[in-house]
Amino acid sequence: MMAVWRVSRLTLLTMLLTAGAAPLTGQLPSSAAAAPRALQLQWDSVAPGVWRATVGAPQRVTLLGMAAMPPRFDALRSMPAVRFPVAPEHIRAAEYDGKVSLRLPLEPHEQLYGLGLNFKSVQQRGTVKQLHVDHFGGTDNGRTHAPVPFYVSSAGYGVLVDAARYITVYAGTAVRRDSERPPQVKDRTTDRSWTSQPAADAVEVLVPANGATLYLFGGPTTLAAVKRYNLYSGGGALPPKWGLGFVHRVPTRFTAEQATREVDDFAARRFPLDVLGLEPGWQSASYPGSFAWDTVRFRDPDAFMAQMKRAGVRVNLWMNPYVAPSSPMFAALQPLSGSHMVWNGIVPDFTLAATRAVVLRHFERELLRRGVSGYKLDEVDGYDRWLWPDNATFPSGLSGEEMRQLYGVSIQRATADAFHARDQRTWGLVRASNAGAASLPYVLYNDSYSHPDFITALVSSSFIGVLWTPEVRSSKTAEEWLRRMQSVCFSPMAMLNAWSDGTKPWSFPTVAEPVREVMQLRLRLLPYLYTAFARYHFDGTPPMRAMALVDGFRAELAETPGTLSSTANPYATATQRDVKDQFMVGDALLVAPMFAGDSSRTVLLPTGRWYDFYTGALAGDGQIITVTPGLGRIPLFVRDGATIPLLTGERLHVPAAGERADLELRHYGMAPGTFELYDDDGTTFAYERGELSWTPLVVTRDASGELYGAAPRVASGKPFSYGAMTWKMMTPR
Amino acid sequence: MMAVWRVSRLTLLTMLLTAGAAPLTGQLPSSAAAAPRALQLQWDSVAPGVWRATVGAPQRVTLLGMAAMPPRFDALRSMPAVRFPVAPEHIRAAEYDGKVSLRLPLEPHEQLYGLGLNFKSVQQRGTVKQLHVDHFGGTDNGRTHAPVPFYVSSAGYGVLVDAARYITVYAGTAVRRDSERPPQVKDRTTDRSWTSQPAADAVEVLVPANGATLYLFGGPTTLAAVKRYNLYSGGGALPPKWGLGFVHRVPTRFTAEQATREVDDFAARRFPLDVLGLEPGWQSASYPGSFAWDTVRFRDPDAFMAQMKRAGVRVNLWMNPYVAPSSPMFAALQPLSGSHMVWNGIVPDFTLAATRAVVLRHFERELLRRGVSGYKLDEVDGYDRWLWPDNATFPSGLSGEEMRQLYGVSIQRATADAFHARDQRTWGLVRASNAGAASLPYVLYNDSYSHPDFITALVSSSFIGVLWTPEVRSSKTAEEWLRRMQSVCFSPMAMLNAWSDGTKPWSFPTVAEPVREVMQLRLRLLPYLYTAFARYHFDGTPPMRAMALVDGFRAELAETPGTLSSTANPYATATQRDVKDQFMVGDALLVAPMFAGDSSRTVLLPTGRWYDFYTGALAGDGQIITVTPGLGRIPLFVRDGATIPLLTGERLHVPAAGERADLELRHYGMAPGTFELYDDDGTTFAYERGELSWTPLVVTRDASGELYGAAPRVASGKPFSYGAMTWKMMTPR
Repeated sequence: MMAVWRVSRLTLLTMLLTAGAAPLTGQLPSSAAAAPRALQLQWDSVAPGVWRATVGAPQRVTLLGMAAMPPRFDALRSMPAVRFPVAPEHIRAAEYDGKVSLRLPLEPHEQLYGLGLNFKSVQQRGTVKQLHVDHFGGTDNGRTHAPVPFYVSSAGYGVLVDAARYITVYAGTAVRRDSERPPQVKDRTTDRSWTSQPAADAVEVLVPANGATLYLFGGPTTLAAVKRYNLYSGGGALPPKWGLGFVHRVPTRFTAEQATREVDDFAARRFPLDVLGLEPGWQSASYPGSFAWDTVRFRDPDAFMAQMKRAGVRVNLWMNPYVAPSSPMFAALQPLSGSHMVWNGIVPDFTLAATRAVVLRHFERELLRRGVSGYKLDEVDGYDRWLWPDNATFPSGLSGEEMRQLYGVSIQRATADAFHARDQRTWGLVRASNAGAASLPYVLYNDSYSHPDFITALVSSSFIGVLWTPEVRSSKTAEEWLRRMQSVCFSPMAMLNAWSDGTKPWSFPTVAEPVREVMQLRLRLLPYLYTAFARYHFDGTPPMRAMALVDGFRAELAETPGTLSSTANPYATATQRDVKDQFMVGDALLVAPMFAGDSSRTVLLPTGRWYDFYTGALAGDGQIITVTPGLGRIPLFVRDGATIPLLTGERLHVPAAGERADLELRHYGMAPGTFELYDDDGTTFAYERGELSWTPLVVTRDASGELYGAAPRVASGKPFSYGAMTWKMMTPR
Repeated sequence: MMAVWRVSRLTLLTMLLTAGAAPLTGQLPSSAAAAPRALQLQWDSVAPGVWRATVGAPQRVTLLGMAAMPPRFDALRSMPAVRFPVAPEHIRAAEYDGKVSLRLPLEPHEQLYGLGLNFKSVQQRGTVKQLHVDHFGGTDNGRTHAPVPFYVSSAGYGVLVDAARYITVYAGTAVRRDSERPPQVKDRTTDRSWTSQPAADAVEVLVPANGATLYLFGGPTTLAAVKRYNLYSGGGALPPKWGLGFVHRVPTRFTAEQATREVDDFAARRFPLDVLGLEPGWQSASYPGSFAWDTVRFRDPDAFMAQMKRAGVRVNLWMNPYVAPSSPMFAALQPLSGSHMVWNGIVPDFTLAATRAVVLRHFERELLRRGVSGYKLDEVDGYDRWLWPDNATFPSGLSGEEMRQLYGVSIQRATADAFHARDQRTWGLVRASNAGAASLPYVLYNDSYSHPDFITALVSSSFIGVLWTPEVRSSKTAEEWLRRMQSVCFSPMAMLNAWSDGTKPWSFPTVAEPVREVMQLRLRLLPYLYTAFARYHFDGTPPMRAMALVDGFRAELAETPGTLSSTANPYATATQRDVKDQFMVGDALLVAPMFAGDSSRTVLLPTGRWYDFYTGALAGDGQIITVTPGLGRIPLFVRDGATIPLLTGERLHVPAAGERADLELRHYGMAPGTFELYDDDGTTFAYERGELSWTPLVVTRDASGELYGAAPRVASGKPFSYGAMTWKMMTPR
């Protein structure tokens, strides 16, 4: 018995080991395995420094097609000439399993930035993301409000993968067997230099569709690549001046009377206010929405709007796009909506002209005709458990996935186009965006509330042509309140969103005065901020930008070796120092926010001398400094030779039409320099027809070598709204 | 000028609102929009109470095809006859955009369980998951070690979507416009009953492929649906008896001498030990692996293995499948591996017979011939930044995505088949699994370390035919150490994994004795545990199971209304009470783990009387009780009328072959009852050929109504290894 058994076991084992054609459970039936099909890439130069290739089958729906305005060719032409920035033979494309796969080369020391609105990290090489519009969920895994499939490299070029799909990007993580430069093989047991992430020599991208469009943007610098991307998208959005004032949103259930009293309160307490935001309660029903004024809370919308106009305050209305049966638009929108509902409201398909016609007609009649200035477009991002599923369908033919990636963009476009048709600039909020959206006059926000995360998002937004506000809502302490207010005043939208908490800027009495001061500073900086946004529009330079986009900034990106811990860090993964808590506003102003609980912080100063904004004193020279600013100040540093123009005196509003506001021109440092001050009428699109001015503010040396500011010469026949301009040399000799 | 301008603006607006065929940026080019194509479902009865339908195109690769053994038809036939459990006309399927979409109906009060190995939640209705093999990342979003696309309903049926793809499941979240029972529309501003998640009447599933296989499993209970699923997968895995002993893994760099001393230490201190685990250091190189014994640390593997055999200890070897150039297998595996590397090692394609041949030949020669008893199959799950990208390709033709979903299963199958061919049972560990894997002798584990999460995972594993161990590694306090050791001793693998920390069970001296006691209890419970696993194999009943699978358990699943907070809960989402911190072992034993810092806890007792395991005292009757067990005890409760058979005396190992270990038969409560005690030879597959016994242990009433235990009658000619059996009536009269 035993002998037979032994033979049987050996026979069984042999059979197992040598089994070929006979299909066993656990093995694939033999059949010819499919192989990937290589795709040829034909590169066309579509603008100076911008190249495009169609990969696989052309797609009906693209991100740029939905979002972008025509490229600003003149501005692109005025940038330095560049060659195709990557070795084209190293860019590969293939199709397999109905999907397109891309591979772009990476040199050993390249750093990558972009790949969506990230909240925890800035440098993205070594990460994997599935880019998917969603409310940020706590991890930079690609699920975010603007999961833009665009990255820039420290080597000075940018890459956009244009597909309205959940694109997966392996940003230098995947190592191919046939890599020309494979990493060194190490033994983890004995080699302390073993790393959990061997360096890969490529970015790999998977697009779950049979085609995509690939764009390359030349540099030569990282900032230049971002500029080309923004210009190719149509240039950045130029806000109306009032959009850069202070924005205050009142609680959901506020009535017209309560809102009016709130506005009066701001004026009485001498706190700046340019925009009042109404939350869902202005509608007769919300979640889903009626888009009709509530007849009790806003009994007389015309009277209310007139009151706001007299107070010099614009009105911004909350909405999400999910339409209630009670809405006047409901019947017309039913055939123009998707298969699924969100919060029991139908989901209009804004990619259809007919949908826009219905909605915009209603908005014109009920809202814009009454003087409403803008919208807060809520909940167009996620979460999955609320929005339509990926298998939803839409009358345009867009799949649930495509619509998810484009919905925020489609509503931004529709509403922005309507304002443009009225020759009226707007400035609003939105919770989802995507590639090509730089020209859309909307600022991203969300429901998260980590102050450090909010600053990281502001930094990361600057790589991908979107804007972000670290809005303030509430705080546990007065210190936290002040620090958050300080930060938000250096962002694209200085906003207190009291939709739920009913806070006011003065809610923490012990810091009410420093809060008022930083709000004042925000208003006074209008000429400088407005110029930064003009640069965004005319030459693609992000108004608030990451340090990685600053010439002369070399971050200490050395790794900190990881400490092995079976519970916290089982692969002893090294951590990389990421510069995510400081940023530039314009070319000259470095902002280093303080977080509650910190009395000091380090600041990384780029190459060259930097001066304290408040005192004009030298702060440092291309070095890391430690500052202890005190509670009342947010650390601000100015580049050597820069001029910051500020409005003078107390400001409760941005300058009104016809008001000639005086300027103080603050020069910093020991170097001469010129600041081109931008101006236009501040509210219409006349600037598109050349109605604008750039006024040089020049500091130069006299015969004795002393610095002095020349009297600015304003071009005649061009709009220039400011009054007297007085130089102030901030740095003592 | 102004008049002209006004007309122009109106004209522009009119153009905008009425634009039809002219393509504007931001709108889709007009074209006929595609629509979803409905798919017919043809249901076949493939086993008693199991129905199958092919949706769309048949797929070459399926989850069950890779994992499952043939169904246990006899056991399925002996289950209650059931009808097709869902209204078939309400099951819909469609194809669109190359993907298959499914819809299954939900009644208003159905609760759902399963959908992968979840760590934070048990009840899954109201969630959205993209089922994707990965190391658990902190959220039950579908990224987990066993993202099994199977769910069971409280209504008593189960659903499996078989596709080796990243399947998205909307478990009652998506509401269709054409729903027959749409939720009530409410105004969030004024209606306190507004909910952020209106009830949907369907589960919707999206499979990113042109086909899938759909299975329905009948009940009539939820547990019965799980049993049918497990039986259809081939029945659960029956471990060798030694697999249910204590498992200790030594630090990575331990040598043979150090490992031997550790084993001796266990014996000297009288701590049980059945399995010694060696970590990466047994190999001459790891990450990537050589799969060859290190010639310094394990200079003489034969001598080491002989030493272990003399000590009565089996050996389990760590490995991950990524093969180093230094491995003897490397050259042969190169053409059998994928396009990408993981930690600089090639990734063998285990779905190919040729790959299995190379690997298993090497394992037989180097490992199994020497007496190695099993493997720990590490890092076959994730994370994305280490494993191959989704666009990787494999020689079998599997895409990176398909391989990700199947890799853990493919290696389990290959290695389990090799042990089976040797007629030698194994018991090991793995970090990834999927549907149909119930018969595979592997227990899941990971790098996380939250004790509550670990218990929730143990609970959730029981719905989906996988096993999980809440392994112990380290602790901050002695209390934590003891509580973790208590928990792991009631799991499928009682293991201390000291790969990094070098801990021993006695590392916390103040609790060394209670630790030893619970390890002893684990060993003494062998007859009871082994019987529970036999039930897993023969009738599909999970050995450790969720309370939701227990008849007479009605969880207080009432919602706690959400408190609105702009920072923490902006949608005032209600939270549902989920029973995730207690579970059953076998039919009779309820385990309620304690977590460090808690001296008391509540326990939900199912309908009927339950008795304290330690004292036999009545604990409660279908109610919620509060217990304060003291540090030395883990709360254990026994069903009225149940018998728990335990080994007697001190146990340092499970009983050896030929050892006749005596039993104490503990009866609890006031009711009669019968426990069918299972036995076989404990190490081979002879049980598959009927070499097994079920011995009834009967407690009945005598003429005076007194309970007494009858002398057990052992069937002759069947394997029965135990010795004297003595009754102990635990509950005083």
